[in-house]
Amino acid sequence: MIICGVDPGLTRCGVGVIEARASRQLSFVHVDVVRSDPEQSQDLRLLTIYNGLAEKIDQFSPDVVSIERVFAQANRNTVLGTAQAAGLAMLAAAQRGIPVALHTPTEVKLAVTGNGQAEKIQVERMVARILRLDRLPKPADAADALAQAMCHALRPSGALQGGEREQHLTQAQRQWAQAQHSNRRRGSVQRDM
Amino acid sequence: MIICGVDPGLTRCGVGVIEARASRQLSFVHVDVVRSDPEQSQDLRLLTIYNGLAEKIDQFSPDVVSIERVFAQANRNTVLGTAQAAGLAMLAAAQRGIPVALHTPTEVKLAVTGNGQAEKIQVERMVARILRLDRLPKPADAADALAQAMCHALRPSGALQGGEREQHLTQAQRQWAQAQHSNRRRGSVQRDM
Repeated sequence: MIICGVDPGLTRCGVGVIEARASRQLSFVHVDVVRSDPEQSQDLRLLTIYNGLAEKIDQFSPDVVSIERVFAQANRNTVLGTAQAAGLAMLAAAQRGIPVALHTPTEVKLAVTGNGQAEKIQVERMVARILRLDRLPKPADAADALAQAMCHALRPSGALQGGEREQHLTQAQRQWAQAQHSNRRRGSVQRDM
Repeated sequence: MIICGVDPGLTRCGVGVIEARASRQLSFVHVDVVRSDPEQSQDLRLLTIYNGLAEKIDQFSPDVVSIERVFAQANRNTVLGTAQAAGLAMLAAAQRGIPVALHTPTEVKLAVTGNGQAEKIQVERMVARILRLDRLPKPADAADALAQAMCHALRPSGALQGGEREQHLTQAQRQWAQAQHSNRRRGSVQRDM
């Protein structure tokens, strides 16, 4: 199962892709940070983030996109941009018929380190250890995105069963979304010809 | 100039379209409310709102999309969904190379009634009067979307000049976005054949 974790943000949006085997062994696949220019207008920044996320999802075709759950009581200066970036990640997944899961930062820390109050550096070290990376993933957004994906695989309810918080499409919704997406892809192939 | 006003919301998203002539005469073109089912998962609700907004923008090809500016101190229960819906409206506009303007509720009330603290019913009455409607636009989201569009036309800096708050694309950005969009439309025509 391929899991794409997203640490949403309007300036820097972390994307981490891992593979989870039935044995619960996790492997690193990819990590990157999609950035937008704070000098640009908000609509163009959102377009940049959306295009970057959609490209990653198309590249790795994850089975699930796991996104940080954003709360209104978070940092007032950035929470709206963070919520909007999370919304774009949800949109890009839903357009492709890919299920979306939302996990809070506390759930992520708990799943990755066993401590819901863990420091950032502890999370980074455990991400590197579990994924057998030679160095700590940088920047923090990259580590957080990998941790978000790992949380989805390691959470108590298991990687492959839907939890209460997981948002599943009905069979009909998924088929519809997938058909829409493959139509779009066919369109894009025809354009390139 | 065709102006599309958006009153963003995750459950109900108002869309109001008006035409502003050089004489500053405003005409009603269209009003509707895009809805999503609160029983659905958030990703599917965002997809529904995005598709509805994109369809309206494609139908009326506005010269500008004017969206309510959302603040973090707004109602905590709904502010994140509202911000996400506003983000989707910005994305849909930016994907089509259409400029986006953001106006606060106070600016809208001031432009439409002359009083930034006006009651909702006052705003609705002025919307109906200025647009020569037979009855008050309902529901409130519809009236707010029309008022948002009217604000963009009636604001002191004028409908056709970019204000400080208006977010303009550079020429190159606009051409790029328009080319992307017309590619997508060509793709969709080919799919229909």
